[in-house]
Amino acid sequence: MAKRTAVIDIGSNSVRIVIYEKTSRYAFHLLREDKSKVRIGEGAYKQGGMLQEAAMQRAFETIEEFVTIAKSYKVRKILCVATSALRDAPNRDVFIKRVSSRLSLNIKVIDGAQEAQLGGIAVANMLPPNNYVTIDIGGGSTELASIQNGMIVEQLSLDLGTVRLKELFCDEGRFDDAVAYIKNAALAIPPSYLNRPIAGIGGTIRAVSMAYMRYIGYPIKVLHGFSYTTKAITLFSKKIYQRPPQELKLLGIKSERFDVIDAGTLIYTTLLEHLQAPEVTVSQVGVREGRFIQDLLRHQRHMRFPTPINPTMQSLIDRYIDDLEYVKNLKRTALELFDLLHEKLQLPVAYRELLGHAATLSNIGVELNYYDFERHSFYLILHSIYGMSHRETLLVATLVRYHTSKEPSEAFIQKYKTLLPKLKEIKGLIYLLALASSMLKANPKTLPFEVTWTGTQLHLHSLAKNHLAIEKLKRLESPIKIIID
Amino acid sequence: MAKRTAVIDIGSNSVRIVIYEKTSRYAFHLLREDKSKVRIGEGAYKQGGMLQEAAMQRAFETIEEFVTIAKSYKVRKILCVATSALRDAPNRDVFIKRVSSRLSLNIKVIDGAQEAQLGGIAVANMLPPNNYVTIDIGGGSTELASIQNGMIVEQLSLDLGTVRLKELFCDEGRFDDAVAYIKNAALAIPPSYLNRPIAGIGGTIRAVSMAYMRYIGYPIKVLHGFSYTTKAITLFSKKIYQRPPQELKLLGIKSERFDVIDAGTLIYTTLLEHLQAPEVTVSQVGVREGRFIQDLLRHQRHMRFPTPINPTMQSLIDRYIDDLEYVKNLKRTALELFDLLHEKLQLPVAYRELLGHAATLSNIGVELNYYDFERHSFYLILHSIYGMSHRETLLVATLVRYHTSKEPSEAFIQKYKTLLPKLKEIKGLIYLLALASSMLKANPKTLPFEVTWTGTQLHLHSLAKNHLAIEKLKRLESPIKIIID
Repeated sequence: MAKRTAVIDIGSNSVRIVIYEKTSRYAFHLLREDKSKVRIGEGAYKQGGMLQEAAMQRAFETIEEFVTIAKSYKVRKILCVATSALRDAPNRDVFIKRVSSRLSLNIKVIDGAQEAQLGGIAVANMLPPNNYVTIDIGGGSTELASIQNGMIVEQLSLDLGTVRLKELFCDEGRFDDAVAYIKNAALAIPPSYLNRPIAGIGGTIRAVSMAYMRYIGYPIKVLHGFSYTTKAITLFSKKIYQRPPQELKLLGIKSERFDVIDAGTLIYTTLLEHLQAPEVTVSQVGVREGRFIQDLLRHQRHMRFPTPINPTMQSLIDRYIDDLEYVKNLKRTALELFDLLHEKLQLPVAYRELLGHAATLSNIGVELNYYDFERHSFYLILHSIYGMSHRETLLVATLVRYHTSKEPSEAFIQKYKTLLPKLKEIKGLIYLLALASSMLKANPKTLPFEVTWTGTQLHLHSLAKNHLAIEKLKRLESPIKIIID
Repeated sequence: MAKRTAVIDIGSNSVRIVIYEKTSRYAFHLLREDKSKVRIGEGAYKQGGMLQEAAMQRAFETIEEFVTIAKSYKVRKILCVATSALRDAPNRDVFIKRVSSRLSLNIKVIDGAQEAQLGGIAVANMLPPNNYVTIDIGGGSTELASIQNGMIVEQLSLDLGTVRLKELFCDEGRFDDAVAYIKNAALAIPPSYLNRPIAGIGGTIRAVSMAYMRYIGYPIKVLHGFSYTTKAITLFSKKIYQRPPQELKLLGIKSERFDVIDAGTLIYTTLLEHLQAPEVTVSQVGVREGRFIQDLLRHQRHMRFPTPINPTMQSLIDRYIDDLEYVKNLKRTALELFDLLHEKLQLPVAYRELLGHAATLSNIGVELNYYDFERHSFYLILHSIYGMSHRETLLVATLVRYHTSKEPSEAFIQKYKTLLPKLKEIKGLIYLLALASSMLKANPKTLPFEVTWTGTQLHLHSLAKNHLAIEKLKRLESPIKIIID
């Protein structure tokens, strides 16, 4: 049984659970996610933050069900954090004790700085590296963290939340007051947060971004890592803000979010404007994943996965690669060919690492079905890898998809054209992977050819019989002259 | 380490290897397939079948490489069969002894009847049930088997093969003589084979069918189980027969098949005409899979998987389902709802079994990525299940894809319209699966509701708190009235 951990997160709007499975020391993947719109803070904002009994009971029973779910997955531990609703509640101990005594579950109430920190940890480890400012819009509060070189250097919590604003202003139609309130809160943001790329966290940003993604017909159906300009999302948000339910439904927004979407959109766009942020990258991960990673890396000095480990890629390797020795040989061979030929093929050196990833992941689709496994590998890579940009992930997936024979079709190029590099570069990289995989057709543990590049031709000196490899190499359409002996 | 078996098949045109992994007693999936166009029978047809030394050496070295590949997969056994080229060769013992003494591999030369039998076993177990006549066009011979109620009742081998006809006639442009030869050979086919649905086996039929599939823009990229009328394929074959390489390439036919495609197409269409066959279903499996299944079922009385086991579905269950108890509960619940509501929803009883499959497989996509797992489950089901028709597999996959919330999109319906039932029926089935999965939102081991159908409304009496389930049920768009208490 692999090690599994559940994280329960008690927010003001909803209570959520995630369950992760570790497949090796630093590799994990999500097994389950669920939420219930418990709204534990309901009615509290106008009562000095006092939790109401009905809301507490609802929350208790939901957490009880989540614990049952966690147990059905045989998790080793359940981590439980609570954010602003409990933070602000004078009577929170009543609730905490009830959960602790009846469910043996310890709720850790985290302050705003810790909450911002957890979102930052998740983003710093799971989005493509950048000096982001994270924005995590919740039901009761909004957290910001400033990331520099993978470390969280500042954090901030604002009393801005979707449920809070809904109850204080929006329910009474006082939208102008809501804007003034947000702008006032935003004054607390230090200048160091301005003009930075944003990483967007939380249900509001996910809902708005998902609607935008559908609206523009974005070709990759993965929200995590999706990015857009502030200008574009601000314009698009007018299709959401103060619009009737049927319009929201057409945009693909789920009905359970309708009642807080106005407050959420308002906070989001007002903050983006205030921050003078050029662009946003959406994060599917936040406080829960941050808490999980914090626990996973508790013996590390920094809250960072050791370079060059990518936890999601490692998880694919753990789960889908059978013959690791062959894969390492393939990667080594592909990179050796890259080093010999990249100038001739006019391939930027930046692609070297991506070619290595493609070699590593080239066969993972076999697990789904051997026939057409290249297409299944493509599908797996595109939907499972975090920590690289969509452009990078797509390029890796594309090399894998086409490395055994055919060229990318016109329809394929057309579909992904906004995210792909020049066709000539794609073809050059595909060729290198095809060449490496042909030379290793018979799954040897070492490279059965001696390879030299004369500057005009590639000389492959066969160190064994290599019938299968040579048969394959002879059929390969090659942009450079190959001599096999 | 799961149990793995390799099968090497020495044909007249190519030598092939498949490697299968068993995940439970009757469940297996393909790990690897490879072939080399060894053409062991090259030059033999005009020499009384005598194998030529160069061809034998080529075959030996290729088999040696295949054995290395098999060992790299740590297979427990290697089964090796040889068909017409060795069958016809007076000097075959030279070759068999060489392989046996140097590679410790025993080649079993099978006669035509056994070869037909193996193809029949593969088809009877891996295509949707039907009283097929199988046609397996090889390099040296063509086998036919007659299947009745899952058993092979007759078999036949004809000296018709692509390499044989190429060397005897086509290379010299004597196409009319080739046709006469085929027609003459076909006279040996008994009348009991006529007017029957065909299961098409072998590289020629796969190549022609794949080209046709692409040509018509068939929406499912799975060759196994693809079916068409004799009329359609006969018409299409004119685009292949005696056409220049560039036209073949445009049709997606691989260059290594160009030299035998004329002979192959001629045998295929002439036999279909002679057999007066109404339609063909393509089989991706044949002699190799038949040999593997024969070995797998060697202790059974009949060469049949016990009902209701579907080896490919069982393999998905073995590899992708973690909480089998939950899945069984979901299936039971979905079927119970079907029994209560199928009349009201006007759902044919034939869909009951497919709904059960959908319930069983509804969560398998989580293994790929939790987000959008319904879409990943759809993808897995569509590409991995054999033994059902494409229509059935697609329906199962569609129910899974849409059971958590959204309706099938217009684009989806449009793409698959030729293979889907009425939208109303799809929606009814999706609804039942959605209802069952909502009731079991918290992964209980039993159904936490008492369900009654009054004829006008569905009464769900809650046997526990069921917060998560009730929250989900209330959001479900329901075509019938539901009372929850």
